[in-house]
Amino acid sequence: MTRRTRADATEPTRPETGRRRFLTQSAAAGIAAIGSAPAVASAAASAEDLPLRVPKWSTEPGLPLSHEKYGLPSPFEKSVVRRGRQDWVMPGSGSIMSPLANLRGMITPNGLAFERTHGGVPEIDPAQHRLAVHGLVRQPLVFTMNDIVRFPSVSRIHFLECAGNTSRGWAPPFPPTVQLSHGLLSCCEWTGVLLSTVLDEAGLMPEAKWLLAEGADAVALNRSVPISKALEDAMLVYAQNGEMLRPENGYPLRLFLPGWEGNMNVKWLRRLKLGAEPFMTRWETSKYTDSMPDGSARQFTFTMEAKSVITHPAPERPLTTKGFVEVSGIAWSGNGRIRRVDVSTDGGRSWRSAELQQPVLHRAWTRFRLPWTWKGGDTVLQSRAIDETGYVQPTAEQLVAVRGTANQYHFNGIQSWRIASDGKVSNVRA
Amino acid sequence: MTRRTRADATEPTRPETGRRRFLTQSAAAGIAAIGSAPAVASAAASAEDLPLRVPKWSTEPGLPLSHEKYGLPSPFEKSVVRRGRQDWVMPGSGSIMSPLANLRGMITPNGLAFERTHGGVPEIDPAQHRLAVHGLVRQPLVFTMNDIVRFPSVSRIHFLECAGNTSRGWAPPFPPTVQLSHGLLSCCEWTGVLLSTVLDEAGLMPEAKWLLAEGADAVALNRSVPISKALEDAMLVYAQNGEMLRPENGYPLRLFLPGWEGNMNVKWLRRLKLGAEPFMTRWETSKYTDSMPDGSARQFTFTMEAKSVITHPAPERPLTTKGFVEVSGIAWSGNGRIRRVDVSTDGGRSWRSAELQQPVLHRAWTRFRLPWTWKGGDTVLQSRAIDETGYVQPTAEQLVAVRGTANQYHFNGIQSWRIASDGKVSNVRA
Repeated sequence: MTRRTRADATEPTRPETGRRRFLTQSAAAGIAAIGSAPAVASAAASAEDLPLRVPKWSTEPGLPLSHEKYGLPSPFEKSVVRRGRQDWVMPGSGSIMSPLANLRGMITPNGLAFERTHGGVPEIDPAQHRLAVHGLVRQPLVFTMNDIVRFPSVSRIHFLECAGNTSRGWAPPFPPTVQLSHGLLSCCEWTGVLLSTVLDEAGLMPEAKWLLAEGADAVALNRSVPISKALEDAMLVYAQNGEMLRPENGYPLRLFLPGWEGNMNVKWLRRLKLGAEPFMTRWETSKYTDSMPDGSARQFTFTMEAKSVITHPAPERPLTTKGFVEVSGIAWSGNGRIRRVDVSTDGGRSWRSAELQQPVLHRAWTRFRLPWTWKGGDTVLQSRAIDETGYVQPTAEQLVAVRGTANQYHFNGIQSWRIASDGKVSNVRA
Repeated sequence: MTRRTRADATEPTRPETGRRRFLTQSAAAGIAAIGSAPAVASAAASAEDLPLRVPKWSTEPGLPLSHEKYGLPSPFEKSVVRRGRQDWVMPGSGSIMSPLANLRGMITPNGLAFERTHGGVPEIDPAQHRLAVHGLVRQPLVFTMNDIVRFPSVSRIHFLECAGNTSRGWAPPFPPTVQLSHGLLSCCEWTGVLLSTVLDEAGLMPEAKWLLAEGADAVALNRSVPISKALEDAMLVYAQNGEMLRPENGYPLRLFLPGWEGNMNVKWLRRLKLGAEPFMTRWETSKYTDSMPDGSARQFTFTMEAKSVITHPAPERPLTTKGFVEVSGIAWSGNGRIRRVDVSTDGGRSWRSAELQQPVLHRAWTRFRLPWTWKGGDTVLQSRAIDETGYVQPTAEQLVAVRGTANQYHFNGIQSWRIASDGKVSNVRA
């Protein structure tokens, strides 16, 4: 075997073709060079040449295997949880938000998927759960869960966003973190049966133009869905990221309408009633409409339009070191695939296109990443999503100019993060 | 609004162009037709016309939101857990297997990802964890976890399979379930930094042809990796399905070698030592070699070759009803993408190509699905994966003819499930 002397191993780093250094290119980077390690170039694999202090966990057996237990994160990750306001009058009404700054890639793990409920989380026995399909169908039917899982299945990765996500983007004060600002948002792999398959089984009558989807929770949340969406790509979903749905996400069955506002993706689904017109439920009349400056309200604004947010840096993940920074975030559109994400590191004066994580999927999160060198100055970061229809995510000002500030729903303006010279990140309107 | 009479709503189902029924096409299907439901065609959304008994959970508030807690599956899913032998002498040495029959789609949730450890699971404080890169490099370096997560990141969906998965496929008795037979296998979205990026930071010497990857667990598990793989697509991974790695999967850092045997994907990674030759550790000499019939052993058989398994039906998910059955399973190849999966429902006499779930990704699970009508007879189901290199998954007989039966590793023969006339499923060699 070739043996190298220590002098070789520690010779100064030289610039080379094809070699790119990210962290050690500046003296301030803080990576430890090994100057005093023993025999670092020995070709043997012995503990003697390990250039590290050996911690306690390397010297004694670790924990036993977790037989017949469901695995959990490390105790050192205990701060990575869903958070939300806890001052709702009824403890089952409210929402808890995904910790977006701590998420990587495109999949939200089920334990961190956001939750929005209006009457608490019902504890449903799947053996007793039923789905009725009735109204304008040739043969009204009642399905057990065993029936539902027998149908031909599909699995698709899609985002899910509450209509009220970033509801506090309309006017200050803005939420202090990306979790509390944008966290009513997740992206998972959903498995179930296409709604069109189930409707075919019952037989749609020609007059059926809308359906009422209703949950088995205490408030019997129900929404009207146009038949065109039901036949396009709607699913009856029973699994999320490979396993059965979590209780707070609709166990054992929910409606899933890719790209449409979260509230319509009715959880704990107990019936689909076909009708000729929308059903005008309280969930689409007193709520989930968009206030306009003239005092009117827009109803049935179903699609979540293109939007993006930088999740690193973010208030929860400030900058601690000058030099190389990977700016990273997520973009999504209820109208299809993300075509491009632009990032500005100077408050919107100039923009660069970010790299998009592959594959870029229809109505799914697209992770974007852009290399940046932070020189320690005060600046503002922004991202702007463009989807395959050519739609460009608007600035907050453009959105407010059209819709006013008396809104709760469908805010999709560009998010601005101020980076202070100490690396701290705050939520601003730039 | 159009109102329909009840006679319209319950008229007999008629065959129609474009309408396909799966469950109600035979009288034995057992779907409940609603014959006595009140006013099923009313266009109003009132509780009165719900054609279902109202269970207790629909009449009282549900559980409060789980603020600041990490979410868990429904108590009704408590049997869906990892399982394995519990008779190992040392409780931290062994493996627990993913419940493949209960998984849907392509993502394995982290709580159910398989686990294989040799010295137990170390409880590592990420603030104290270090990665050393030394040996044949220009500048030996020690990285903190903060350093590692600062690098440019990538996220990729890949399977991970233990070299010893289906180790009991060589000869009877065969394991009774797909979990115990094929469950040392998972597929997740992995996020980290390309190993090539980190090696560039230290600067490879021209003589560096292998690296030793070593874990911080009590056995200091270490394996030799050729530099070609390190520079092709190897990753240093810190996140799995969006969140930080689980302790049993290498928290806070592991090596990831897409498509290569699980043992080499060293968990709790503490060092990478570059050398000119393989390091000949006990993990690649006394173990993780392939026994051949002539008494020799093949070393460094890194790639997990193309393989597939039907997960429905399976021993854990027998057939309960004649008629439509969706045959579903997973296929994967360490050599690239799956091109095709053939399914036989007659013990290998005839084959049909299954539908592949999109997107089909490089070195990832590909879910396949095939519609089948079970008439109640005794038969054998099989699946056969073909990857993009043209490699065809062999029969068990073909594999045994070449390699004998004194093996533990790299069994990838075709799996046969016998369906008995009562719908029960058993593991056979057909």
